[in-house]
Amino acid sequence: MSQEEGEVSVFRVGLLGHGTVGAAFATLLPVQADRIQRITGLRPELSGVLTRSRGSFEEILEHSDLIVELIGGIDPARDYLLRAMRAGKHIVTANKQLLAHHGEELWDEARVQGVQLRFEGAVAGVVPVIRVLQESLAGATIDRVRGIVNGTTNFILTEMARTGATFEVALAEAQRLGYAEADPSDDVGGRDAAAKMAIIARLAFGTPVHIDQVAYEGIEQIQPDDLEYARDLGLGLKLIGTAERVGATAMSVRVYPAFLYPGHPLASINGPFNAVTVESEAITEITMSGPGAGGPQTASAVLGDVISAMIPPASTPPATETLEIVHDVVSSFYLHLEVADEPGVLASVAQILALQDVSVKSVVQKGMRDQARLVMVVHPVLESRFEAAMELIAGLDIMRAPPRAIRVLEEEFG
Amino acid sequence: MSQEEGEVSVFRVGLLGHGTVGAAFATLLPVQADRIQRITGLRPELSGVLTRSRGSFEEILEHSDLIVELIGGIDPARDYLLRAMRAGKHIVTANKQLLAHHGEELWDEARVQGVQLRFEGAVAGVVPVIRVLQESLAGATIDRVRGIVNGTTNFILTEMARTGATFEVALAEAQRLGYAEADPSDDVGGRDAAAKMAIIARLAFGTPVHIDQVAYEGIEQIQPDDLEYARDLGLGLKLIGTAERVGATAMSVRVYPAFLYPGHPLASINGPFNAVTVESEAITEITMSGPGAGGPQTASAVLGDVISAMIPPASTPPATETLEIVHDVVSSFYLHLEVADEPGVLASVAQILALQDVSVKSVVQKGMRDQARLVMVVHPVLESRFEAAMELIAGLDIMRAPPRAIRVLEEEFG
Repeated sequence: MSQEEGEVSVFRVGLLGHGTVGAAFATLLPVQADRIQRITGLRPELSGVLTRSRGSFEEILEHSDLIVELIGGIDPARDYLLRAMRAGKHIVTANKQLLAHHGEELWDEARVQGVQLRFEGAVAGVVPVIRVLQESLAGATIDRVRGIVNGTTNFILTEMARTGATFEVALAEAQRLGYAEADPSDDVGGRDAAAKMAIIARLAFGTPVHIDQVAYEGIEQIQPDDLEYARDLGLGLKLIGTAERVGATAMSVRVYPAFLYPGHPLASINGPFNAVTVESEAITEITMSGPGAGGPQTASAVLGDVISAMIPPASTPPATETLEIVHDVVSSFYLHLEVADEPGVLASVAQILALQDVSVKSVVQKGMRDQARLVMVVHPVLESRFEAAMELIAGLDIMRAPPRAIRVLEEEFG
Repeated sequence: MSQEEGEVSVFRVGLLGHGTVGAAFATLLPVQADRIQRITGLRPELSGVLTRSRGSFEEILEHSDLIVELIGGIDPARDYLLRAMRAGKHIVTANKQLLAHHGEELWDEARVQGVQLRFEGAVAGVVPVIRVLQESLAGATIDRVRGIVNGTTNFILTEMARTGATFEVALAEAQRLGYAEADPSDDVGGRDAAAKMAIIARLAFGTPVHIDQVAYEGIEQIQPDDLEYARDLGLGLKLIGTAERVGATAMSVRVYPAFLYPGHPLASINGPFNAVTVESEAITEITMSGPGAGGPQTASAVLGDVISAMIPPASTPPATETLEIVHDVVSSFYLHLEVADEPGVLASVAQILALQDVSVKSVVQKGMRDQARLVMVVHPVLESRFEAAMELIAGLDIMRAPPRAIRVLEEEFG
C-alpha cells in the first residue's frame, strides 16, 4: 500500500484527468499533505497525471496506491477503473454518468478485488449525501430522498423568479457567470440530475438503477408567467429529483420541475446550490445543503474520499494542533435600554459607547414615560469593550432597569 | 470479533443503559438485523443490557464484540468505556458530557488499543456532523462551525417568537410536549450546547477542548419584547454555538443567544430541530439539519455507528433488494391553460378533469380576450390519469396554446 522514503510512508495518488476538478485536486493535495499525514500517518503524493495529450495510464497505474478518476464519460474511464481495481488499487471517482450506466459492474469488481471505490464527488459536490446514505443511515429504512442536485438549473430558476427573465436570458446569464457550460443540454434537460438520482436511489433502496430507468424532464419549457402565478400562490419552483418507495415492492426515480410550499426544506435553496432531504420514519428527515459544483468544492469531496481510502476512519486522530482558546472575540450586539423619558438620554448613552469605540449601526427610540426604550444595534466590536460600555451604562441615573444585550450575527450567505 | 452460530457469524452488541435512547436502540437493532446482515455479512445481536437494577458489566463485556454506552454522565461510564477498550472492544457512545470532559483520554485509549470509538449520537441527534467533520471534510481547512445543537432551546425560542409567550410559559409548553426535561437547567442554561460545541471544536480544529473552556450563556433572560423588536428588524433569535479560528494561532468556542438575518442558513431552523453550518474557504459552506434529539432518532445515529464499527465502510454493498421501478406515480399539478374568453370554458375543462378523476384544489381565472388564462392546482392523482386529461384538454377548440403543467410537492415539514 505504501512506499518507504526515509522515515515517511508515502501514499501514491494517480490522477486521471486535468480539467476544472482535476486541476483543483492537483492544487489541493500538496496544500493539505501535512494535515493528511498527521491524520493518517501517510504522506499523500501525486504519482502522475494523465491528460488528453500527456501521460501513460499503465505507468501511472504501476506507481499508484489509489487512482483518482476525473476524466468523465464512459470510455475510457470504465476500462481504466476496472483495470485499476484488478491491479488492487483503490478508486475515487466523481463520474456520475459512468456510475449511472455501469455502477453494478464497478461496485461488484470493487468487492471482488477487496478495494475501495468511493464517489462522493459524483453526486452533489461537497454535500455529503453518499457518505450519509451509505454510512450514517445504514441503520435506517429510507422512505424517500428528494434533491436539488443540479446547480445550473437551480441558478437559472432562481434568476427567472428574481428578475422575471425568460429561460433563454437566464441561461445566458448562467453561462456568463460560469454556472452553465457552452453546451448546457445535459444540465437544463435534466439528464445530469437523472444520473445523480440513479446513484442516490441505488444507495437508498439497494436496487440496481440504470439512468435509462429514471424518468426525467428539464426546465427549458418553463415560462416566466408560470413563476409569476406561482409567486401569487406562495410557491417556489425547483428542479427536483425524487427517489421513493411505492408500496412494499416498488420504487420510483424521477426528475422534474416542481413547485414547493415555503415550509419545504428545499424551498429556501437558491442560486447554484445543491440540497438533499432524506426521509425515514425513524429519523423524520435530514436535509443537507451546500455548493453544488465548482472545481475546488468537488476536489474537496474527492480528497475526503482519498483520505478515507488511505485509512478507514475508525478512530479520532490525536489532537496535534495547539490553538490557543480565546474568549474576547469581536461581536455585533443588539442593545435594549429601558430609560427615563427625558432630554439628553441618547447623548449620555452615545457618549459612553463612543468612549469604548462602540459604533452604532441603528437606533430606535420607542414608547413614552415609563415605557420609554432605546433599542440599538452596534457594529462588531471586541466584546470586552462592549461589556465595559454596558457597565458604565448600567450606572447611569437614567436607566430604569439593567441594560439587556444580545449578540447579532452579521454574516450574509448564498 | 465474531462467533460462529451455524452458518451465520454473529456480532455481539452489549448495551449499557436502558433509558429513552437505550430502549429505542434495543427495539431498533432486531428490526434492522436482516438489513445489517446483508450489508456487513454479520448478524448483530444484543448480548446483554445493563440497567440501574439489572445486569453485570463484566458479564456483558465478556460476551460482546462492541459496547454501546447510553447511560450518560461521567461515572461509571468513563470507567466502563476504558475497561471495554482495554478488553479490545469497539465503543459507540452518545455521551456528550463524558467526551467534553475526558475526550482526549478516551480517544487516546482507542488508538492505543486499536479499537473504534464512535459518537455520532453525542452531538446533534441524527444530523451527521461528527462523520462529516471527521471524514467528508478531512481534506478541508475549517474556518468556522456554527450550530443550533440544542433542540429544547430552539423549540422554546420558536414558541416565544410565534406566540409572544414568556420564557417560563414556553418552557412549560416544551415540558408538556416532552421537548424539555423536568430539570431543564442543562439545556436552557447552555451547558448541554457547550458540551457539544467542545466536541465539534476538537474535531474541526484538532485542538483539545474541555467543556470548561467553552464560554456559554443560556436563554433564561430572553424577554418577549426582545423578540418583538427583533421581528421589526427582520431578525430571528437562536441559541447559537460557534467554534471558529481567531487569527493564525487561536480559536474561540462559545454558546449564546444570537439574532440572525433571514438569509442565514440557520435562520429557518425552527422547533426542536438541530442544524450545523460548516464554513471553509475551499467549500464555502455546508449546512445539515434534522431532528435534534428523541429516542428513535438518536438510536438511529447510534446504529449507524455500530454498523460502521462492524465493517469499515469501504465499498458499496451488493444490490440485494429487487424493488420494481415504476413510473406512474401520484402527483399534484399546477395547470396553466391559455383559453378563449367565452362562456362555458371552465365547464368544459372541469368536465374532462372529472372524467379522469382529477380533483381541483384551487382555480384562478385571469386576463381577458387573448390574455385569458385558467390557472389551477389539482389534488394528487395518478399521473397517467392527469396526462389523459391533458390530452383531452389539448384537443378542445377553446385552447389558444398547448396546456402547460408543472408538478406541485404537497408535503409539509417542520
